[in-house]
Amino acid sequence: MQNQKRVIIDYVSPQINGGNFFIKRVINEVISVKAHVLVDGHDVIASSVLFKHENMRKWNEVRMQHIENDEWSTSFTVEKQGFYTYKVEGWVDYALNWQHGIERKIDDNQYVKSELLEGREYLKPLLKKATASEKKYIQNCIDIFADESKYDQAIAEAKSIALHDIFFKYPQKHLANTTRDFKIYVDRKKALFSTWYEFFPRSSSEVEGQHGTFKDCERLLPRISEMGFDTLYFPPVHPIGEVNRKGRNNTTEANDDDAGSAWGIGSKYGGHKDIHPQLGTVEDFKALVQKAKDLNIEVAMDYALQAAPDHPWVKAHPDWFKWRPDGTVQYAENPPKKYQDILPIYWESEDYKNLWQECLDILLYWIDCGINVFRVDNPHTKPYYFWNWIIDEVKKQYPDVIFLAEAFTKPKVMQQLAKQGYTQSYTYFTWRNNKHELISYMTELTQTDQREYMRPNFWPNTPDINPYHLQGANESKYIQRYVLAATLSSNIGIYGPVFEQQIDEAIPGKEEYFMSEKFEVKFYDWTIQNKLTAIISKVNAIRHNHDALQQTNNIKFCHIENDNLIAFYKWNEAKTDELLIIVSLDQYYLQQGTVQLPLADLGINAGHQVTVSDLITGSSYNWHDEWNFVELHPTLPFHIFKINK
Amino acid sequence: MQNQKRVIIDYVSPQINGGNFFIKRVINEVISVKAHVLVDGHDVIASSVLFKHENMRKWNEVRMQHIENDEWSTSFTVEKQGFYTYKVEGWVDYALNWQHGIERKIDDNQYVKSELLEGREYLKPLLKKATASEKKYIQNCIDIFADESKYDQAIAEAKSIALHDIFFKYPQKHLANTTRDFKIYVDRKKALFSTWYEFFPRSSSEVEGQHGTFKDCERLLPRISEMGFDTLYFPPVHPIGEVNRKGRNNTTEANDDDAGSAWGIGSKYGGHKDIHPQLGTVEDFKALVQKAKDLNIEVAMDYALQAAPDHPWVKAHPDWFKWRPDGTVQYAENPPKKYQDILPIYWESEDYKNLWQECLDILLYWIDCGINVFRVDNPHTKPYYFWNWIIDEVKKQYPDVIFLAEAFTKPKVMQQLAKQGYTQSYTYFTWRNNKHELISYMTELTQTDQREYMRPNFWPNTPDINPYHLQGANESKYIQRYVLAATLSSNIGIYGPVFEQQIDEAIPGKEEYFMSEKFEVKFYDWTIQNKLTAIISKVNAIRHNHDALQQTNNIKFCHIENDNLIAFYKWNEAKTDELLIIVSLDQYYLQQGTVQLPLADLGINAGHQVTVSDLITGSSYNWHDEWNFVELHPTLPFHIFKINK
Repeated sequence: MQNQKRVIIDYVSPQINGGNFFIKRVINEVISVKAHVLVDGHDVIASSVLFKHENMRKWNEVRMQHIENDEWSTSFTVEKQGFYTYKVEGWVDYALNWQHGIERKIDDNQYVKSELLEGREYLKPLLKKATASEKKYIQNCIDIFADESKYDQAIAEAKSIALHDIFFKYPQKHLANTTRDFKIYVDRKKALFSTWYEFFPRSSSEVEGQHGTFKDCERLLPRISEMGFDTLYFPPVHPIGEVNRKGRNNTTEANDDDAGSAWGIGSKYGGHKDIHPQLGTVEDFKALVQKAKDLNIEVAMDYALQAAPDHPWVKAHPDWFKWRPDGTVQYAENPPKKYQDILPIYWESEDYKNLWQECLDILLYWIDCGINVFRVDNPHTKPYYFWNWIIDEVKKQYPDVIFLAEAFTKPKVMQQLAKQGYTQSYTYFTWRNNKHELISYMTELTQTDQREYMRPNFWPNTPDINPYHLQGANESKYIQRYVLAATLSSNIGIYGPVFEQQIDEAIPGKEEYFMSEKFEVKFYDWTIQNKLTAIISKVNAIRHNHDALQQTNNIKFCHIENDNLIAFYKWNEAKTDELLIIVSLDQYYLQQGTVQLPLADLGINAGHQVTVSDLITGSSYNWHDEWNFVELHPTLPFHIFKINK
Repeated sequence: MQNQKRVIIDYVSPQINGGNFFIKRVINEVISVKAHVLVDGHDVIASSVLFKHENMRKWNEVRMQHIENDEWSTSFTVEKQGFYTYKVEGWVDYALNWQHGIERKIDDNQYVKSELLEGREYLKPLLKKATASEKKYIQNCIDIFADESKYDQAIAEAKSIALHDIFFKYPQKHLANTTRDFKIYVDRKKALFSTWYEFFPRSSSEVEGQHGTFKDCERLLPRISEMGFDTLYFPPVHPIGEVNRKGRNNTTEANDDDAGSAWGIGSKYGGHKDIHPQLGTVEDFKALVQKAKDLNIEVAMDYALQAAPDHPWVKAHPDWFKWRPDGTVQYAENPPKKYQDILPIYWESEDYKNLWQECLDILLYWIDCGINVFRVDNPHTKPYYFWNWIIDEVKKQYPDVIFLAEAFTKPKVMQQLAKQGYTQSYTYFTWRNNKHELISYMTELTQTDQREYMRPNFWPNTPDINPYHLQGANESKYIQRYVLAATLSSNIGIYGPVFEQQIDEAIPGKEEYFMSEKFEVKFYDWTIQNKLTAIISKVNAIRHNHDALQQTNNIKFCHIENDNLIAFYKWNEAKTDELLIIVSLDQYYLQQGTVQLPLADLGINAGHQVTVSDLITGSSYNWHDEWNFVELHPTLPFHIFKINK
């Protein structure tokens, strides 16, 4: 036999897959909760959202408001890192129902003596809960509701707002119904707002032909900091396998002096908990991490779960690899291709519990060395439930830790990794180039339920992707791609030296860099200052000073009748920071258009003057119309306008 | 620590609220299951839907096919009444994965001796499962895969379709993942296809001024059957309360000879298990039910859970009603209005278990008397979980029983009742009048998830609703409304005598009948035959002969550039019955338009001749074009075309 509860609560949002995964927020973000709350009949109902941080004992309660058509909403702010739980509660409010009824009867001049007596029953239990002054008021109502000589006074109180407020403040939740628990994981702000710079530490030397060291990297920190980057991501810094090491330009035969791929981890010098000897020692690494921190830069470590054939695991834990009937080990392959410098981990190993534990120990070891950000290599080739487990294990001890999923693969696979717990995700931005592509991709990321669990990180390039549209592109195109990333997404990154210096030679017909740094030590002029570095620095400073650019979901595209111009409105929650961004997508020609201001969002009418100030040039324009002329030249192909009303 | 399963299954459809409610079908309907099924990495995966009837021990399995973008689908047919369970299963198919890899290596001229040895490991376990001839084939493969002298033969077999088919037929579901169970309730066909006629049995007499009896009703059965109705719904037939009985035209003071409202149930003559003495005895009722059955008509009983003040329950179970502090009983009210002929049931009673049980006993009693269809009065004023429980209790014993929810209230309340288990639901069709309203309402009912749980029943009128558009309307309008109901929805009904005779006098400004039959005995000429009865009979016969009209969700509206003409295409699953229906919404003037044939759905190209035959007039037209001229006059304001290709 079912229970007697009468209130139905349905379609709670936000939630993902019926509450099977947590949604994500950072500190001080708002959760706007909506639900369908309904009851049989015509009784007055009430509803609350209950929420608490994992360390709290008691639930906080915020009352929901009825919007229309049995849809209710409210919101609350998450103020601490870690897991929150929330649920929706609904109940029939018999006391308010009583007041609703008696009010109508009094207005209809009915004699309500019996109803007043009923009202006393709703008041009596409140005496225990109320404050002293409220108690006096309640006791007076109880008295006069039974006193016929004070009937007029009684019916005035029965209808009063004072009584309504008392009933509203102290709801009696008889037979209340409650939904299942829903979870939120609250990260530190960096999960939502971060600016990444990637380079290979081995290419940091001042001397051409010399292998860079962590000491060399220290020299580069001030430059990276001045450019406004807060996260410095290094490809793997572990010993590089010597067996079947890759040669330059991804050849299978390495010469003795070839550096190999940094992702071929493990050699006689150690494995995932060790440092490649040519880079320095673990002490050097810790010193670098600390020096970076002093400049507000966090070092992000690469977490690549695979092994070179000479990785110590292969001997110590042969069960973690797959062995073939002929007794040889299974190399990585994508038939007919074989990758003989890499052994994939055998995730179906019967010894998987020890394997998972060791994977966790690696993370804990580096966290202990000062690392709080991991860029995870190819997470989509490892089981989803493994990520669910390991991310949870780390974050319950170290809520500051951030995991970026480096998965460039099928949409549902990328979404699934994000659901399973990744803090941030690489995206298809790298290939979204024209206006239609950009708008539809942003709409998918920010207006569907992906907004609740997938935090995009926009990279114009990576060591793995030299996109066709950057191959042979001019400086204007590079500026456009950086500005688009930096204003469309609050999390961004670049593969730095190659981007700044527009090094774009590709293997013909592929989106791969020719003579890729992945397989060799490169030499760069790290002192270079050019227009691109100047604009990157300026845009990063603007991001740093503008709340509106420190979150991704608050975006609205503005009409502009030119397919080579894209315009969008960004704002912060308090609407104290409102920006209008316009970017030209044409690297060769001047483009003109007329952009529509989002008047309703700005809370103004046409005819109201707004001043838009270009945050790069300092120029200001007074606009009086809804539609306004703009013109962009490839030399400076964007506006970041601050809107002043 | 999480499990090692690698396959993720997500977004299974159809389902409602994550599987918390069952979806609905009738016998021989198809369930098309879709799901996202994905795995980490690049392994070949496979997926099945498992399903079984509640009385089956073993699961049936149908394999899913990959459509695109990690979306899979398949379908199955439900052949028995009662509950089915289904779930989706997914696994990595290691054997097919192996074949996929070796094929590419062979094509690349690699030497695959080691791979052949691996293949043997996938073959050996199949020897236990395979048929005799398959065993021979498998054993041969096992032999030659290890025999270097037969290498060429071995690699030919390794790539073969024969081997693929063996692996596909006997999947080895290592670490398979499975979703939760989802439920389907399968009804008999009548749940989806029914034609209701409502009249008040007390108005069945041949003699004016006399109270009709069940015997009188028997006289009317042949007429109702000949008109093509299969369900005869009576307002309550129980003893009518004598205390505070309602007078004519809904007055509060009844005269001695006033019949009262049939919904004011209970008097000294008994309660919900008794028959109103003026109608006859329970034996008369059973005889009528049987006579109706002989004519393929089922009698639908009204199930109205409320009590007159003199209902026997009030004394026997005072706890089932609410008592006020002054010792009086709580009447029904909608403040400031009071309804003193009715006591609502107090669902929050502490004795609710006995109350629920008694409510169930009422249903079981009448089922025992031959009733299998209940029209439930005002279900939205009783708790949702009560309905969930009682419908389930009845249907697990009597799967033939059909419950129609008479709730004309807010959308989410009506949807919720359907989710909780109602077989059919009254709808807003009664108020959906113009083309836009009809199309958008049909789209909501048939193209959203409501199609899975809400079976609409379209009524042009009821004793409670004399819609404004029928007040003063002409015969053409009545025809239009009947034809729209009968072709848009497979479940329909009319409040018969009043509809046929176009009795439409209303209480001014209201959609209530003037001098409503709800409060008095009426006298009708039950022999009447008019154009409306002729068309109703003909349309019902067409419904009876055409599969396409025996289900509601298979509808597609066709473009026709005239807002007074509505056109839609209906079909059966096998596409052996395809109809094009065109209805004029204008009761006064001739309307012309050009209707677009749904060529893609018909599987033809423009230029292909179709013959459309009007099933009412017998006229045929040959159409060669995609767009075709039609003209409808108020005298016969519709076409039901059978399409012959």
